[in-house]
Amino acid sequence: MKSYFKEVSIRTKGKIEFRNITRDVVKAVEESGVRSGIVNVFTPHTTTGIFVNEDEGGLKRDLELILEKLIPERGGYEHDEVDYNAYAHLRSIILSPSVTIPIENRRLMLGTWQSVFLAEFDGPRERRVRIQVLGMG
Amino acid sequence: MKSYFKEVSIRTKGKIEFRNITRDVVKAVEESGVRSGIVNVFTPHTTTGIFVNEDEGGLKRDLELILEKLIPERGGYEHDEVDYNAYAHLRSIILSPSVTIPIENRRLMLGTWQSVFLAEFDGPRERRVRIQVLGMG
Amino acid sequence: MKSYFKEVSIRTKGKIEFRNITRDVVKAVEESGVRSGIVNVFTPHTTTGIFVNEDEGGLKRDLELILEKLIPERGGYEHDEVDYNAYAHLRSIILSPSVTIPIENRRLMLGTWQSVFLAEFDGPRERRVRIQVLGMG
Repeated sequence: MKSYFKEVSIRTKGKIEFRNITRDVVKAVEESGVRSGIVNVFTPHTTTGIFVNEDEGGLKRDLELILEKLIPERGGYEHDEVDYNAYAHLRSIILSPSVTIPIENRRLMLGTWQSVFLAEFDGPRERRVRIQVLGMG
Repeated sequence: MKSYFKEVSIRTKGKIEFRNITRDVVKAVEESGVRSGIVNVFTPHTTTGIFVNEDEGGLKRDLELILEKLIPERGGYEHDEVDYNAYAHLRSIILSPSVTIPIENRRLMLGTWQSVFLAEFDGPRERRVRIQVLGMG
Repeated sequence: MKSYFKEVSIRTKGKIEFRNITRDVVKAVEESGVRSGIVNVFTPHTTTGIFVNEDEGGLKRDLELILEKLIPERGGYEHDEVDYNAYAHLRSIILSPSVTIPIENRRLMLGTWQSVFLAEFDGPRERRVRIQVLGMG
């Protein structure tokens, strides 16, 4: 049995950005030597999230617009009296900070059209992603 | 320590459907021989999701209606110029592609009223669910 | 390799409440003796959820208001003919019943501002949280 932990640094470029981090996850799985198990991808920030879907430009703009419709940036939030980013916290809660994906035959078992994304809602900033690989060597 | 991977095929019947897959998850846990650990249930598609809740007909219709209110099928999405299913991608992102559940004393530790569902948003299609069981034998 | 399972009881006080359960998760990780692995925090109820974010009073009130806006308590739901709590089920589905977090060097790898919360949507009640710690000893 093996575990392999890795922290990756990501410099986001926009205030809101959906960054494809699949390559980092695949690399961690390869480095781990795990043949069969899981990988947990976790963001330690309260204004980012992790999600999985297709990497298509139009879809990423659709996601930005639907989140603005559901949880608008300017919403008269109480937390904005502390720090002007309540919308970013609320979107992070809805998306969740992590995803767990199976590994089999040393391969990350994503589907053909799936990528793993870090969602930045309060950038640009230096962000970290924590990756834990666990399973049989 | 043991790991047990299984891919299940599911033929969805509706355009939108919430299919109870608890039996498949329980079966994988039994087959695994894992006594104490976790099971990760993952869908490799970008227009489906996994969720956990009660299997009650009215509630499933409520879920369909609330998702249509929040992320309408016809939303003037940019991705619809590529493939007419942006709403299905966006709902999949909100629901997430996986759930991880504890196993203890060889039992899937769901609550009494909980079932695991595959949410289909762009069916009917042949879908797969990937199940990884990991833990102490 | 080690696994350590624990069920924690929580008496919620409000109809809707976001209860910080980080201390319970940290304690389970310490008791487990796991040095490197993951912890899965899971609620077995269909009207609660688990989420991770900052523990700030204003933000918790913002979260309550935005969920009421997105999934109102009185929504004319069909499930309300069975049990008057459809909104609580629907919010639980959106939040999800679990989160999985890395452990490294015997530490729960949450970020500085992150806490783990049990979200109660149909309290007050006696609730349980199931915690499974898995990894290398």
